Amino acid sequence: MTYQAPVNDILAALKCAGALDPAMMNGAAEGLDEATIRAILEEAGKFGAEVLDPLNRIGDRTGSRLENGRVVTPPGWAEAYRQFVNAGWSALPCPIEYGGQGLPSTVAMGVCEIWNAANIAFGMCPLLTNGAIDSIFIGGSDELKSRYLPRMISGEWTGTMNLTEPQAGSDLNGITTRAMPTGDGTYRITGTKIYISYGEHEMTENIIHLVLARLPDAPPGTRGISLFLVPKVLVNDDGSLGARNDVVCAGLEHKMGIIASPTCVMKFGERGGAVGYLVGEENRGLNTMFIMMNAARLAVGVQGVAVAERATQRALAFARERRQGRAAAGNGGGMAPIIQHPDIRRILLTMQVLTKAARGICMATAAAADLAHHANDPSLREKAAGRVALLTPIAKAFSTDAAVEAASLGIQVHGGMGFIEETGAAQHLRDARILPIYEGTNGIQAIDLVMRKLPLSAGAVLKTYLGEVEATIEAIESRSAEGLRGIAEPLGDALVALRRASQWMGQAIPAEPEAALAGATPYCKLFGIVAGGDALAKAALSAGGEFNKTELLRFYADSISVTAPGLARTVMEGARSVLDANLGVPA
Amino acid sequence: MTYQAPVNDILAALKCAGALDPAMMNGAAEGLDEATIRAILEEAGKFGAEVLDPLNRIGDRTGSRLENGRVVTPPGWAEAYRQFVNAGWSALPCPIEYGGQGLPSTVAMGVCEIWNAANIAFGMCPLLTNGAIDSIFIGGSDELKSRYLPRMISGEWTGTMNLTEPQAGSDLNGITTRAMPTGDGTYRITGTKIYISYGEHEMTENIIHLVLARLPDAPPGTRGISLFLVPKVLVNDDGSLGARNDVVCAGLEHKMGIIASPTCVMKFGERGGAVGYLVGEENRGLNTMFIMMNAARLAVGVQGVAVAERATQRALAFARERRQGRAAAGNGGGMAPIIQHPDIRRILLTMQVLTKAARGICMATAAAADLAHHANDPSLREKAAGRVALLTPIAKAFSTDAAVEAASLGIQVHGGMGFIEETGAAQHLRDARILPIYEGTNGIQAIDLVMRKLPLSAGAVLKTYLGEVEATIEAIESRSAEGLRGIAEPLGDALVALRRASQWMGQAIPAEPEAALAGATPYCKLFGIVAGGDALAKAALSAGGEFNKTELLRFYADSISVTAPGLARTVMEGARSVLDANLGVPA
Repeated sequence: MTYQAPVNDILAALKCAGALDPAMMNGAAEGLDEATIRAILEEAGKFGAEVLDPLNRIGDRTGSRLENGRVVTPPGWAEAYRQFVNAGWSALPCPIEYGGQGLPSTVAMGVCEIWNAANIAFGMCPLLTNGAIDSIFIGGSDELKSRYLPRMISGEWTGTMNLTEPQAGSDLNGITTRAMPTGDGTYRITGTKIYISYGEHEMTENIIHLVLARLPDAPPGTRGISLFLVPKVLVNDDGSLGARNDVVCAGLEHKMGIIASPTCVMKFGERGGAVGYLVGEENRGLNTMFIMMNAARLAVGVQGVAVAERATQRALAFARERRQGRAAAGNGGGMAPIIQHPDIRRILLTMQVLTKAARGICMATAAAADLAHHANDPSLREKAAGRVALLTPIAKAFSTDAAVEAASLGIQVHGGMGFIEETGAAQHLRDARILPIYEGTNGIQAIDLVMRKLPLSAGAVLKTYLGEVEATIEAIESRSAEGLRGIAEPLGDALVALRRASQWMGQAIPAEPEAALAGATPYCKLFGIVAGGDALAKAALSAGGEFNKTELLRFYADSISVTAPGLARTVMEGARSVLDANLGVPA
Repeated sequence: MTYQAPVNDILAALKCAGALDPAMMNGAAEGLDEATIRAILEEAGKFGAEVLDPLNRIGDRTGSRLENGRVVTPPGWAEAYRQFVNAGWSALPCPIEYGGQGLPSTVAMGVCEIWNAANIAFGMCPLLTNGAIDSIFIGGSDELKSRYLPRMISGEWTGTMNLTEPQAGSDLNGITTRAMPTGDGTYRITGTKIYISYGEHEMTENIIHLVLARLPDAPPGTRGISLFLVPKVLVNDDGSLGARNDVVCAGLEHKMGIIASPTCVMKFGERGGAVGYLVGEENRGLNTMFIMMNAARLAVGVQGVAVAERATQRALAFARERRQGRAAAGNGGGMAPIIQHPDIRRILLTMQVLTKAARGICMATAAAADLAHHANDPSLREKAAGRVALLTPIAKAFSTDAAVEAASLGIQVHGGMGFIEETGAAQHLRDARILPIYEGTNGIQAIDLVMRKLPLSAGAVLKTYLGEVEATIEAIESRSAEGLRGIAEPLGDALVALRRASQWMGQAIPAEPEAALAGATPYCKLFGIVAGGDALAKAALSAGGEFNKTELLRFYADSISVTAPGLARTVMEGARSVLDANLGVPA
């Protein structure tokens, strides 16, 4: 079945997050009313369905391959990229002063969902280019910006993020790639980077690598890491392309999923050193990287929404067609469409609420990011920045876990056919499985949430957020329709559980950090469940008691929110065995 | 890393299940003391590690392929099968009167775990042959038994189970394969079967297919299905091989996992009809099938234990070697093995307890099966048969869900490397993903549990079981060591939750069957959590307070048992939205 962009759902999530609030827009996106956003989403949906979706399966089967140092993308890939660029999609979320369209993050994330739902292996390329653009925009000199940004924003060139090395994954302390200053203001980069998506390809004439490396005199650890721009092909002063830089793709990884996306081993400086340009200050590369990384983590969360949505659409279509068994409620003989069976309905509803909750969390994060950039009032900007910091690890972890679960449930709906590759359901799980890992594993997200985000503003960022969730639940409770009122209890219980676990964390973080770390993942899950409930509750409220929105919230409350108290118990009582059990640690 | 059979763990689970209790053995396995069982497990472990494990990856990469109707298994497969047969492994669990060794189900399941942990795609072959042997043993005439069983038990021939057709998966009502009586006591079989594991291969000279089909005058539905034995090569009266029968492999499925296991489309009767022999009575084929199926479902549960164990071993080995970050508790500089990080410890412990709980449930089921076969006292046999019926869906569903979760967590422990196929972790998830589907989806298991097993003996089978669980928890509580006593509370809460949900089910099943069905899956999960806790509690009790067994139980109680009350709430309050929400059901 063909992917259909859920334009109404995305638009509803966008509105629920307050993204059309003029205060949020604040002149940053003049003329961007609901009709315009809908038109953008519909156009993106058309492009996704007509151009990207048809390439998804061939990409999965063919993969990209390395031939004499050249990466050959799957059939149709280069042409699709050309169309993508010609239609102006690459410029959508980018700064206006360098040729971008400057659309707000909420709209950009809605469109990002569509690319990644239609074809996540393709969607990787603009996603990472945006990360590179952000880094240059945040940290680069005016010269770097004016030389590189316009052609990256137009899509004429793509970009990559080069962080990981074999010995330095989650822990960037271990980075050994070196940068030697040459005296002319440039550097020579030497080292090996791994897991570089679209590190090499021939869809564009140039690729702009952003590379973390160490200067010779850099202090040890993460305070001695600098960020460099390393073009695949050097750019002359007049903007023409010059010599090939000293960077090559030395291998492609053989992966479980996102198979069409070339995951490259990149070798810098095998012939003396790749020419690199410092982005930002020496030894401060991680600062730039971390600002960019928040956006990238949200984008990966949106990839999770995308895969969950695609898997759900596929499972729903199958369940409406496939007939097995008689429905208990069915009349007459013959087999019933399996969507009539309660157990299948439970699976499909689980997939739906996980997808919608994840989308709601991501949109809330994107809306806060827009406010943090564009609000006139500095205190509003600061508050919004705190909200972005708090919600980003939730958006990333909840949405990517949801993607894996939804994709796995999607296989289950298909029965035996789900295990057969031609059906398409299996690919979603294979693709989704990277999402909880890259751009900071979900364990890292949980630790970030607990150790860095909870303490923000002495806990005030958290407290404000929980107060808002409480107000949402009160609004649900106060609705006179019985349908909404009955749902408030499990939502409220979940909030209580999160508050108790948060208080426990507040004490454990300074006093017993190991115990706090032991509870980080269940705490992060608990937080996500509350945040997802908030998103669905707001959707139900804004839909004014519309039957199906209410039933989805009820399902979420009865089947997802109810797990919150158990998670709180795990956080508060579960550290001892985690720390004490003997797992055969080497001496 | 090489697979190491967890002989001590399997033996401990076997003992906890009471498998060495003389009353259970009851002369059925004379001389089968602990030392002998250990020797069998150790030999199996050696064979698994030395012969099967080294073929696992090549099997996954190469797969089986179809060439002109012939199935070519991966390099080394046929030789490994020859060694397997020569060592006598195929005869292990089979009836003595036909050349088997008649070992109890507990030992057979322990050995089955080892084959499937070392190489699940290989393990499929003997597993299905055993299913076919069981079916013939249960339903076949003496002539069929004496002609086919000895050579299937010796491994000279393999066997298959042919149930599924494109339109008949979970619902066998839809079977259309036809059997025409010829008047000479044989039948001619015509039809297409799909998902037939090892339906064709050349490791043996003959393959014995067991096929569900309909007689011309059969009543509609499942009461009109008969079971037939259809050899690939006809067997002459003197036992020599005769003509090729009219059955061919028309295609192999392209699957997500267990790639080396040939999953065949089988065409029967394309040249007039395959010769088939009735097994059991006409139109009663499903009765034989269902007796066999209980054993097969348990075996699939054991495959789940196997994959979970293998994934856990791999993740533990990696986490001991891989260094990233500093341990909060670590002293000195340098990176710590990631096994020291609390969040990684939580993942590894989750994998361990899921594996051990699943193994314990499967062993308890196998022990009850042995008692049901061998006990002198008929009332003891009947009671044990009820226990087998009750626990089989739990053993299948809990263990296979555990396999998927453990395999997915195993990828997570490896970080980016987990997504790279060469690491080996990804294969476990791809392999595991079929387990919740085949031999009755886990949804079907849940429905079987609720609709057929809870009502057994007017609920007495359930009641007796829950009483035993209560006694286990009381034993934990009564231990004077504080270590054990503190664990009883979450275990007890889980039992209370299961009892409440069971009472609710008892009322819902007759009054609101749709509501009962809507809660079947969370009820089955809840039951599994309680049963798994019982298994780990018994392990801790029998280990006499041994530190690590206690800590594993504590971890399970604090991180798994605590989810039980939420599941009970979903069962009891969650039906409405499942039944009411609009999923776009066709008219």
